[in-house]
Amino acid sequence: MTNKVLNDYRFFDPHEIVGKIAYELYESVRNLPIISPHGHVDARILAENEPFPDPAELIVIPDHYIYRMLYSQGIQLESLGVPTQDGTPVERDHRKIWQLFADHFYLFSGTPTGVWLAHEFEEVFGVEERLNGTNAMRIYDHMAEKLQTREFRPRSLFERFGLEVLTTTDAPGDSLQHHKTLQKSDLKGKVIPCFRPDPVVNIGLPGWKNAIRDLSKASGIEVRSYKKYIEALEKRREYFKSMGAVSTDQGVESPYAHRMSPTRAEAIFKNALRGKATEKESREFTANMLMEMARMSVEDGLVMQIHAGAMRNHNIAVFKKFGLDKGGDIPVQTEYTRNMHELLNTFGNKSSFTVVVFTLDESTYSRELAPLAGHYPAMRLGAPWWFHDSIQGMTRYRERVLETAGVYNTVGFTDDTRAFVSIPARHDLARRIDSNFLAGQVARHIMDKQEAAGIVKDLAYGLAKKTYKL
Amino acid sequence: MTNKVLNDYRFFDPHEIVGKIAYELYESVRNLPIISPHGHVDARILAENEPFPDPAELIVIPDHYIYRMLYSQGIQLESLGVPTQDGTPVERDHRKIWQLFADHFYLFSGTPTGVWLAHEFEEVFGVEERLNGTNAMRIYDHMAEKLQTREFRPRSLFERFGLEVLTTTDAPGDSLQHHKTLQKSDLKGKVIPCFRPDPVVNIGLPGWKNAIRDLSKASGIEVRSYKKYIEALEKRREYFKSMGAVSTDQGVESPYAHRMSPTRAEAIFKNALRGKATEKESREFTANMLMEMARMSVEDGLVMQIHAGAMRNHNIAVFKKFGLDKGGDIPVQTEYTRNMHELLNTFGNKSSFTVVVFTLDESTYSRELAPLAGHYPAMRLGAPWWFHDSIQGMTRYRERVLETAGVYNTVGFTDDTRAFVSIPARHDLARRIDSNFLAGQVARHIMDKQEAAGIVKDLAYGLAKKTYKL
Amino acid sequence: MTNKVLNDYRFFDPHEIVGKIAYELYESVRNLPIISPHGHVDARILAENEPFPDPAELIVIPDHYIYRMLYSQGIQLESLGVPTQDGTPVERDHRKIWQLFADHFYLFSGTPTGVWLAHEFEEVFGVEERLNGTNAMRIYDHMAEKLQTREFRPRSLFERFGLEVLTTTDAPGDSLQHHKTLQKSDLKGKVIPCFRPDPVVNIGLPGWKNAIRDLSKASGIEVRSYKKYIEALEKRREYFKSMGAVSTDQGVESPYAHRMSPTRAEAIFKNALRGKATEKESREFTANMLMEMARMSVEDGLVMQIHAGAMRNHNIAVFKKFGLDKGGDIPVQTEYTRNMHELLNTFGNKSSFTVVVFTLDESTYSRELAPLAGHYPAMRLGAPWWFHDSIQGMTRYRERVLETAGVYNTVGFTDDTRAFVSIPARHDLARRIDSNFLAGQVARHIMDKQEAAGIVKDLAYGLAKKTYKL
Repeated sequence: MTNKVLNDYRFFDPHEIVGKIAYELYESVRNLPIISPHGHVDARILAENEPFPDPAELIVIPDHYIYRMLYSQGIQLESLGVPTQDGTPVERDHRKIWQLFADHFYLFSGTPTGVWLAHEFEEVFGVEERLNGTNAMRIYDHMAEKLQTREFRPRSLFERFGLEVLTTTDAPGDSLQHHKTLQKSDLKGKVIPCFRPDPVVNIGLPGWKNAIRDLSKASGIEVRSYKKYIEALEKRREYFKSMGAVSTDQGVESPYAHRMSPTRAEAIFKNALRGKATEKESREFTANMLMEMARMSVEDGLVMQIHAGAMRNHNIAVFKKFGLDKGGDIPVQTEYTRNMHELLNTFGNKSSFTVVVFTLDESTYSRELAPLAGHYPAMRLGAPWWFHDSIQGMTRYRERVLETAGVYNTVGFTDDTRAFVSIPARHDLARRIDSNFLAGQVARHIMDKQEAAGIVKDLAYGLAKKTYKL
Repeated sequence: MTNKVLNDYRFFDPHEIVGKIAYELYESVRNLPIISPHGHVDARILAENEPFPDPAELIVIPDHYIYRMLYSQGIQLESLGVPTQDGTPVERDHRKIWQLFADHFYLFSGTPTGVWLAHEFEEVFGVEERLNGTNAMRIYDHMAEKLQTREFRPRSLFERFGLEVLTTTDAPGDSLQHHKTLQKSDLKGKVIPCFRPDPVVNIGLPGWKNAIRDLSKASGIEVRSYKKYIEALEKRREYFKSMGAVSTDQGVESPYAHRMSPTRAEAIFKNALRGKATEKESREFTANMLMEMARMSVEDGLVMQIHAGAMRNHNIAVFKKFGLDKGGDIPVQTEYTRNMHELLNTFGNKSSFTVVVFTLDESTYSRELAPLAGHYPAMRLGAPWWFHDSIQGMTRYRERVLETAGVYNTVGFTDDTRAFVSIPARHDLARRIDSNFLAGQVARHIMDKQEAAGIVKDLAYGLAKKTYKL
Repeated sequence: MTNKVLNDYRFFDPHEIVGKIAYELYESVRNLPIISPHGHVDARILAENEPFPDPAELIVIPDHYIYRMLYSQGIQLESLGVPTQDGTPVERDHRKIWQLFADHFYLFSGTPTGVWLAHEFEEVFGVEERLNGTNAMRIYDHMAEKLQTREFRPRSLFERFGLEVLTTTDAPGDSLQHHKTLQKSDLKGKVIPCFRPDPVVNIGLPGWKNAIRDLSKASGIEVRSYKKYIEALEKRREYFKSMGAVSTDQGVESPYAHRMSPTRAEAIFKNALRGKATEKESREFTANMLMEMARMSVEDGLVMQIHAGAMRNHNIAVFKKFGLDKGGDIPVQTEYTRNMHELLNTFGNKSSFTVVVFTLDESTYSRELAPLAGHYPAMRLGAPWWFHDSIQGMTRYRERVLETAGVYNTVGFTDDTRAFVSIPARHDLARRIDSNFLAGQVARHIMDKQEAAGIVKDLAYGLAKKTYKL
């Protein structure tokens, strides 16, 4: 097949000695099962197992990695079919959307999105040419046809992808009904929830009161006080755990953690219920809830995840028209050494507790995060995240983290995606980059081949399994 | 010519496959015309077209990149002939200055200045040996002789360098008389002004009132109020535009942009006229003027440039004795996500507006600037600037920017130089580094050759032309 | 010896052209004498010249680089024999400690500690296999036997290591008796003190008053006022100088330097004597003492060193139980441009003064430190420090510093270690990495071989000698 877009040695160092070792290492992990310990795939997709509607609906419309880039070049989100909040009509002809996307596919040259899509097209759909304006409709038809087949139903893909565990991300008030359906199904592999309390923690968000109402309903506890709120959260964590959950997750602008007095917590909570909490109180409350969630994790054993450093909804006009997660979240400088001081001093010396920290500020890798993870028994450093989940980003991460934190204070790869069909592409890329990085270590005689052979397996599979107690 | 200092494969990856692709890519752009969309060459030089006086006057005395390094090793600026503000006598024997420079030329090993000078010596002057203390006078004589020939007159060099557009940087009160002269000349290629309002924006600078006087004179508007000040600026922009300008530029310590009320602006402006503006008011005023300049750009179509992050005149003794731009400007941590929030929310969604942002803080490339440029239609990321306009600096830029912002949210190369004869050296270096970077992408199968071949041309030529609407 | 763990080409670029040049450069400096201009070896060890007790006592128990990593993976410091402050019993069977260390030696894969230990085992002790749980006791016995021989006495090792100068770090109140002993001995090579006033500068530390008492005793000046305090410091510097000292050192969280009025200094000092100084006063006092120490260096010619950016004793429980320097020091964001403004403006233009600045914040290399060192005659940039004294760390340092500061505003390698037997491993690694970096420059035709050959010698030997006036 001389037309294949994907080269089997892709992403490896062009130097043949390094490339050869990289390829050997990669071959040893290429087909390992996939553990996806954190992500945003909707369990409903797998529970219902309906065919994906069409290529535009599958690939373009829901993926802010894609339309962020198109938007930056002057393409309106409406013309990409991204649904509006205010009912403004958007493009409904999905072939037109696909054509527009294909016309601008060159914008993704050298980006991880470009790399993942190339993998999806060829490995998942058998498309063996590069997408462009000319072949757009032919490829659309080819993919659309595939999507109607049984082999392209979500559960078939799940099994074909070799997924052993897929973790979703769920609100405290979620019934987890789709997880129930899946537990009763004959799906090979597990789909488990992750407890993400953000909607009930961010007392400044417009939807907070609704989220509290959902929490009350789901927990059966009338959440009218901070005390009841904590009880309800504990009860929901218990329920999530009973449904297979092994972890929680919090997205915060700053990782500042600080316990407040119960009296103060109660007062702020009541202010929030009256819709009168200030921004400062909101920040204090979040800092307090990092401490509380850590405390609960120490007690119930759920692994705590912290994703810090995004200023959400930077583009207010886009947020108002299209809602959350539309490509307008922008990282900010983030500080961990001082901000996590109280949390780590309170809980960080406990081996029974695990807190996995993710960052969008690469300058903290070698300065703060590797030294912290290389000291505190409870702390682990999460995989390179979001903008840094990329060839260069993963390489920088290894180069800045390994020497201080070693391999075993990191947690393996996390795809963190909502794009279901991109999962194998993302894990394949990570496995390739880790293989290549380790090959460089071997070729420079920093490690020997045997060490590298063990490590590559831990990075691809073992560490995720161990960290998340799967 | 076995003595040649310059190797044709210089700066490429030593791996032969990568080097070969890099060379091919480079060959395809090596001789493209040069677009220099931002810099500090004095239009007078080309308007008058007098011979450059001698090598020391041409190369050493005006270039703070050079004497910064010499000064750091204990060489007095006076002994390099750098003119003083206070009349302290300086070395006037230019052969002595050249000898001193040559004696210390080893200090530039591995620096971009060293690389550019090697290019200038060999490619522009035909010097085929490395400068040192021994051959200093021989090389001086050789160059001095060349400088007296017709081929080395500024306009001859301009055409020999293949300059298609050269942009200067000019104060609002500048008459642009030299630009007029050049427009009437038969010079092949354009010399256009860029509107830089810094002297009239920085209300804290000693020369501010003089600059306001110049602005009044040039605009014919008596600038006695903020309102008149804005009118005068608009009028001068119009004039600059009529003289071919396509852009403005602002140098700011922080990119903080925030509109103030007209009343407050008026009050601060009047304080400034009375010499009573505080430092805080000065910062507020600058923030306001970023908003105003953006507003004007939206209206008149001039591309807005922001150069942020230098603390000017860090070395007060050097500043007092020698004045501005003497190597004592030092970068500071810079924040863009929050500081540019208002500007981008007000104007960033307009495709008709372009704001090009430059930074001295590389930690912001992947954290803030690439995500912002990869989202807002109006924002483009400027080329690696100043200390980062270097082999490693350009490589880091591509590695940190490409994956998130892609190629097309960047603007190609900007030399930003006041050293006229260094222009081809700088563009050649940038073309080589971009070719080498892209070759690495091809060799790793991230891009194919065809993609890289298109991109290298856009980086070397197309993007500058497009961004600056030339 | 096919079993050897160490490859002679280790750490070089696998590309054969680069590797060959790197090897040639390395060969030219491999056996140069070692100058260790800053470190923490205890002079007593060499003065007494007793055999090192055993491998665990030599390698594991005193090295926080090692047990930091083991602790991060849940191994208790007590089980590693680390002495407690409160008398809690710790493991005393050193064979057990060694076994535990060996069982977890895989944690050091890819870390500088792993690399240094591999060198120590093979080059110093002749162990030609990789340490692991199985061979732990065999290697222990082999090393223990060696340690009892005359060849492994500290002074024999000192000479075998080719140490020309070893600098220790000493408190102002230290008698330097061990230095006296060594000066009278026939040791080939010098052991000199470095004046570190931290214990008497940090007025907030619990031990401060004791340190002042020691200072009084050592100086013969009753330190009851700030004035007397300064006098006593000056007198001790004089004494240190008479004992061969060429430098001072200060460890500070922030490099903020600011002179306070004598009245204010006197007032704060008296508050401190009464145990009533606030945290703010403590910070002010440190800032003042940076200015004072610089002033004294200008007067007495001692090179000033500043190590900035560690938050000490982050882990309070570990600090309370085990004391200082137990792996719980974590870097913080550090700012130099503004913080060092006053110090550099007051003293930085003097060529007679040298201030060597070290950082834990790599983002400042290209942004702040290289531009400052590339301008101020007095400033030099110290070697990559602590977490960044590593293969990648040293490479990043060169890549970010060379282009702006050149080679000659840096100071060569500093091992900064308290692990005596690791000294040759650390210098060997630095020489290899610098050789490899320069080989890359040569292979890319940025430098020629002759330049690189001179520079590699300066980096390995000449610059340390020159900077520290040895």
